[in-house]
Amino acid sequence: MTRYLNQSEATKLDEELFNVYNFGVEQLMELAGLSCASAISNGFPSFKNVLIVVGPGNNGGDGLVCARHMKIFGYSPEIFLPKRTAKTLYENLIKQCELFEIPILNACPSVEELNAKYSLVVDALFGFSFKPPVRQEFCEILHNMIHMSTPCCSIDIPSGWDVENGPTLGAPYLKPEMLISLTAPKLCARFFKGKLHYLGGRFIAPVLARKYELELPNYVGIECYVCLS
Amino acid sequence: MTRYLNQSEATKLDEELFNVYNFGVEQLMELAGLSCASAISNGFPSFKNVLIVVGPGNNGGDGLVCARHMKIFGYSPEIFLPKRTAKTLYENLIKQCELFEIPILNACPSVEELNAKYSLVVDALFGFSFKPPVRQEFCEILHNMIHMSTPCCSIDIPSGWDVENGPTLGAPYLKPEMLISLTAPKLCARFFKGKLHYLGGRFIAPVLARKYELELPNYVGIECYVCLS
Repeated sequence: MTRYLNQSEATKLDEELFNVYNFGVEQLMELAGLSCASAISNGFPSFKNVLIVVGPGNNGGDGLVCARHMKIFGYSPEIFLPKRTAKTLYENLIKQCELFEIPILNACPSVEELNAKYSLVVDALFGFSFKPPVRQEFCEILHNMIHMSTPCCSIDIPSGWDVENGPTLGAPYLKPEMLISLTAPKLCARFFKGKLHYLGGRFIAPVLARKYELELPNYVGIECYVCLS
Repeated sequence: MTRYLNQSEATKLDEELFNVYNFGVEQLMELAGLSCASAISNGFPSFKNVLIVVGPGNNGGDGLVCARHMKIFGYSPEIFLPKRTAKTLYENLIKQCELFEIPILNACPSVEELNAKYSLVVDALFGFSFKPPVRQEFCEILHNMIHMSTPCCSIDIPSGWDVENGPTLGAPYLKPEMLISLTAPKLCARFFKGKLHYLGGRFIAPVLARKYELELPNYVGIECYVCLS
């Protein structure tokens, strides 16, 4: 059984990848985003018009890389960035998407637009370092994603969910059909009720997996994702 | 027909990836090395004991990334570095290999050792910026690779070959069984007589491929390599 990580374990594992393994953010983000695009091509092979909703942190960076690889794979992705950050890493990833001719939306799409234009929405808003509440600038897009009928694929954490305790009951919350956990599932994945749960981010050394008692499932051959459901 | 690039075109394309697309070296090296490991798993699926010979430039960096992914895929790679460089990028990639428990040889393996211990040798010594002659510190390993009976897989350029004019006739030269061209084949690939020619490095935007008239072959699905032979 794959073990689910709490927020502090996920943070420590991430810090170890950067500070002990000396991985660069760009390097792991490239592998993480590629694994997301690959898993989506497995879960939704015929869903060509895809919107990727990109947050301002590393989860958003994974989304930008995912968008570029989806374009390479033959999808027609578009991007919405509720809040652009001035970080060089972000600007570079956005530049790459622009040069790969991926449209970037100017305005927040309405529920009707999400339903009419896209066959899949990828949620790359918030990752494992999210702490509620959702800040003002993300409320409109998250509201629209919660109320759309288009299926949603969340990267690592369904946005708005508590990383450990899942959705806040009593209020509407995002219900993705697909979840791609990265490196290892976080505790909130226990509350995931969608059909497709994948694991991506195949870059953990065996010694590190043992240290965190991850008991990762076996990836097949050279595949960079594995289906857990 | 895929077009073969001369040395100056290869250099210009590379500069454009870094200076216009703002790709990071780490980012593209990760994709290039992953595509090499993936292509090798296709070309030599049952050759588990592999030595990766790593040069001091970006070709060597691709080799270090390739080694790590081969380990992840279940191979038993080892590494030989004829000349360690103090560059941070290199030190980080080597650190990652060490933590993935990939042995690093202390001494140059003899022809007999190459024949006895390894079922495949990956040549990641010199890439497309190589200019002859081969410097002293690389002569022994290159000599041994030329005279070994173990099959060789060269990354991008068979080491010691002129990037445009191929091997120097009249002297013994490396004859790889497999060549993995990265982004696009270089002119010397016309002289490649091995059985397996692959293309890896699936990260060129269509607009850039058109600019350089690359006429790249179609990659299949989400695969990061394509067999040209």
